[in-house]
Amino acid sequence: MSKAEPLVLIVSGPSGSGKSTLVQKILELPGTMLSVSCTTRPPRKTESDGKWYNFVSEAEFQRMVEQGEFLEYAQVFGKNWYGTPRKSLDDALALKRDLVLEIDVQGALQTKQKLPGAVAVFVMPPSRADLEHRIRARGQDSEDEIRRRLERARQEMLNYSSYDFAIVNDDLERAGREVQAIALGSRCRVARMEDRIRDILNSFGG
Amino acid sequence: MSKAEPLVLIVSGPSGSGKSTLVQKILELPGTMLSVSCTTRPPRKTESDGKWYNFVSEAEFQRMVEQGEFLEYAQVFGKNWYGTPRKSLDDALALKRDLVLEIDVQGALQTKQKLPGAVAVFVMPPSRADLEHRIRARGQDSEDEIRRRLERARQEMLNYSSYDFAIVNDDLERAGREVQAIALGSRCRVARMEDRIRDILNSFGG
Repeated sequence: MSKAEPLVLIVSGPSGSGKSTLVQKILELPGTMLSVSCTTRPPRKTESDGKWYNFVSEAEFQRMVEQGEFLEYAQVFGKNWYGTPRKSLDDALALKRDLVLEIDVQGALQTKQKLPGAVAVFVMPPSRADLEHRIRARGQDSEDEIRRRLERARQEMLNYSSYDFAIVNDDLERAGREVQAIALGSRCRVARMEDRIRDILNSFGG
Repeated sequence: MSKAEPLVLIVSGPSGSGKSTLVQKILELPGTMLSVSCTTRPPRKTESDGKWYNFVSEAEFQRMVEQGEFLEYAQVFGKNWYGTPRKSLDDALALKRDLVLEIDVQGALQTKQKLPGAVAVFVMPPSRADLEHRIRARGQDSEDEIRRRLERARQEMLNYSSYDFAIVNDDLERAGREVQAIALGSRCRVARMEDRIRDILNSFGG
């Protein structure tokens, strides 16, 4: 397994849970890289192509789906499409990096099905009141949008048991340490160490 | 599960692999405690009762076995008995600490059977030559004893796949970081977080 597959770390969590900040914490660790998703949604002003997303047309996205170029893909809010290119896996393997996927629940389930060795982390707000406070503090959303986000958060969290780890983001420093610990510790899973262990056993005469 | 059971971290590894040093690294983390084993072997000069071991007579050990007071116990080298008192679990639970067990392969297998949620870490030397060097450097053992230790190391390592994690102890600093990461990360396993998650979901209306 360790030969064919990089360590894949999936991070999901409701909008406003702070998952992107925790993804950055993982990326501070040497030997990690972010998988850049493709999306059909238009870029925001602050977003440059190829850094957080590759922005593609619907036609191009469809072509990639048909040619099996996605590890997972999903339509979010019944509107825009998001997908993780399989190529990310090859790149991570070639560079000997752990691959970090910031994807939603649907994408996480697809990825875990295809890559059972992937490690899935769910980031949660400590409470509804806290999440509502964070969403309001951003000041981007209408009342309707806030209600929709909170309901979507609830629905996403019902899938927590498909994940390996859960982090409650009530203290960013502690949560950051935890997500880094999960990433580092996952490198030592026996299934990932088998080549190394076999070499050691061989030195003992098998 | 999180109510009935503390997080149990098992650390095993051949004599000379440096596992005791890595156990100390875990114990540097706040919220951890060592399970003190019982043994029938006589104390070494440097060992005080109740710190690393509770030294008991064979008759007392036998009584504890009969009364089911051990989580696991085993005879090592067909000579001395070692056992982990169940009471360690109660103590850890009462103190809200993670419980660290430094036990051999037999004990680890027994413990994993009784506590499937326990996290088992196997510490390995990087090679036979390295282990032999470390054992010789201690200068405690006869040639016969060295051969026996190396053969026993090989046999122990054949059980690696019963463990969750493997750490190759070729760099103490890195190995220390890894074992701490495994301990910290294991606190976030979804199975251990279920009470907390349920509270959060309840705040969202379930």
